[in-house]
Amino acid sequence: MDKAFAIRGLWCALLTPLDGQGNVDGARLARHARELMAQGIDGVAPFGTTGEGQSFSQREREAGLASLIEGGVAPQKIVAGTGAASLTETIALTRHAVQAGSAACLVLPPFFFKEISDDGLYAWYARLIEGVGDSRLRVLLYHIPQVSGIPFSIDLVARLARDFPGIVAGVKDSAGEWENTQRLLQRVPGLAIFVGHEPHLPRLLQAGGAGTICGVANVRPALVKALMQPKASEDDIARVVEFIEIAFRQPFLPAFKAIVAERTGDPGWLAVRAPLVPLDAGQRQTLQQALQRSAAPL
Amino acid sequence: MDKAFAIRGLWCALLTPLDGQGNVDGARLARHARELMAQGIDGVAPFGTTGEGQSFSQREREAGLASLIEGGVAPQKIVAGTGAASLTETIALTRHAVQAGSAACLVLPPFFFKEISDDGLYAWYARLIEGVGDSRLRVLLYHIPQVSGIPFSIDLVARLARDFPGIVAGVKDSAGEWENTQRLLQRVPGLAIFVGHEPHLPRLLQAGGAGTICGVANVRPALVKALMQPKASEDDIARVVEFIEIAFRQPFLPAFKAIVAERTGDPGWLAVRAPLVPLDAGQRQTLQQALQRSAAPL
Repeated sequence: MDKAFAIRGLWCALLTPLDGQGNVDGARLARHARELMAQGIDGVAPFGTTGEGQSFSQREREAGLASLIEGGVAPQKIVAGTGAASLTETIALTRHAVQAGSAACLVLPPFFFKEISDDGLYAWYARLIEGVGDSRLRVLLYHIPQVSGIPFSIDLVARLARDFPGIVAGVKDSAGEWENTQRLLQRVPGLAIFVGHEPHLPRLLQAGGAGTICGVANVRPALVKALMQPKASEDDIARVVEFIEIAFRQPFLPAFKAIVAERTGDPGWLAVRAPLVPLDAGQRQTLQQALQRSAAPL
Repeated sequence: MDKAFAIRGLWCALLTPLDGQGNVDGARLARHARELMAQGIDGVAPFGTTGEGQSFSQREREAGLASLIEGGVAPQKIVAGTGAASLTETIALTRHAVQAGSAACLVLPPFFFKEISDDGLYAWYARLIEGVGDSRLRVLLYHIPQVSGIPFSIDLVARLARDFPGIVAGVKDSAGEWENTQRLLQRVPGLAIFVGHEPHLPRLLQAGGAGTICGVANVRPALVKALMQPKASEDDIARVVEFIEIAFRQPFLPAFKAIVAERTGDPGWLAVRAPLVPLDAGQRQTLQQALQRSAAPL
């Protein structure tokens, strides 16, 4: 098995645009991805947390991935979010993404039951890998305990990396705690470690990490790209920190969609799936004013 | 619309037996349900938390419900667990259960995103009801924040009850906090209020509540049935409390399955779906010894 894993750099955790009926707008999704890639991002990750992945059914997510590819995004530039609460659906989604040629699959742990043992999570990923049964599979473990409720222990990551070399290819660490990221880099240096929290990117890259799969790239790709440079400055970091601080004053995901709606002049971008709620006009105005006063108004 | 809601009494949150391949064993599920009903429970609720509902796909859950009905359980004796992380799948599952004739649907709130607003949850249930589009729908709101991460505020329950009279028919309050149950009884007296925590049953019934949808009924139906009697004693309550205390010394769901496996002599009952882990031989022995020493050995 080829243990090399080519994914590095700046990947965008894609927002999912909806049509007038609240369904995935595949054509607009592909256009958004192409525009971001034209601005220098390395690839896209649909149907993660920023992509409201869990708000769509298996069929909707499979169709969305197909739309991206039909819309001109090369499969090797796609990390597909394929986690679901059930193993059955996660196997089906992951198999579909592998067969479509995706570079890797970003797989949440099962997130309904809480206080799950490492043995239970290990068994879950082992059955996923066995169930997909395809040597092309590359799994990124998705550590986002503040949302999923299910943290990965470093021991579990190491055990999975040891027993499924090449297949378990990396971790997306979206907890935003640098100490955890640092422990991963030390303990599993063969894995591709990605951060979700963009300001950690310069020190991650210095320490040998792989890059970022992040939401800010939807709306400020240049800001994040600056953090990929060997000479990223404290000012570059401060600009991203300020942007995040402003965006997170309201629920960040509807805020990101509002920013795209403003930039493109397309109010269709405002729509989110329930249980999320779009920003109202007052929230949008407050957000825009804060951004206009910031160091990165566009 | 008929606002009367007939479901009251003792309903079992069914365990889900698996076959040798780890798939739902529909015939054994129906047999388990029939045996419990022969012991005097009023109905069954498949694919809730105790039924590992979120560990099965939409298709598996639809097939499981069909197996119950084909296996001789009358649909009006079934409250179907139809919640899923996505609205799309929840609508599909709920519509299927309504068309199958289920007495009601027990619907979790969407449980991936956390810190969701009441407006977002309201919109989610409103779209569910609109999406199912069937006046036979009866929704039980499923309050189990210690697992789902999403509590229902009393205000939200009242708002849904007001705007969807008859359709929003009740609450399954599985938080185990009597104060919350009491507030529901006071604020939405027209709803059928069920508890998950069996020891609260006598005071719930005294206060006008509907009954219980509970897991202990899988393994000790007579103990729970005793709590349904007008003259349930402190001793009756103490026996259930002791049983729960013993069962919860290990993960309760694999423990319940181990108890059924022991009673039926069928080790196939031990199997759980990942990420849960079955009890090992040592845990089973410890559990059985504790139960044998208890006031409710069988």
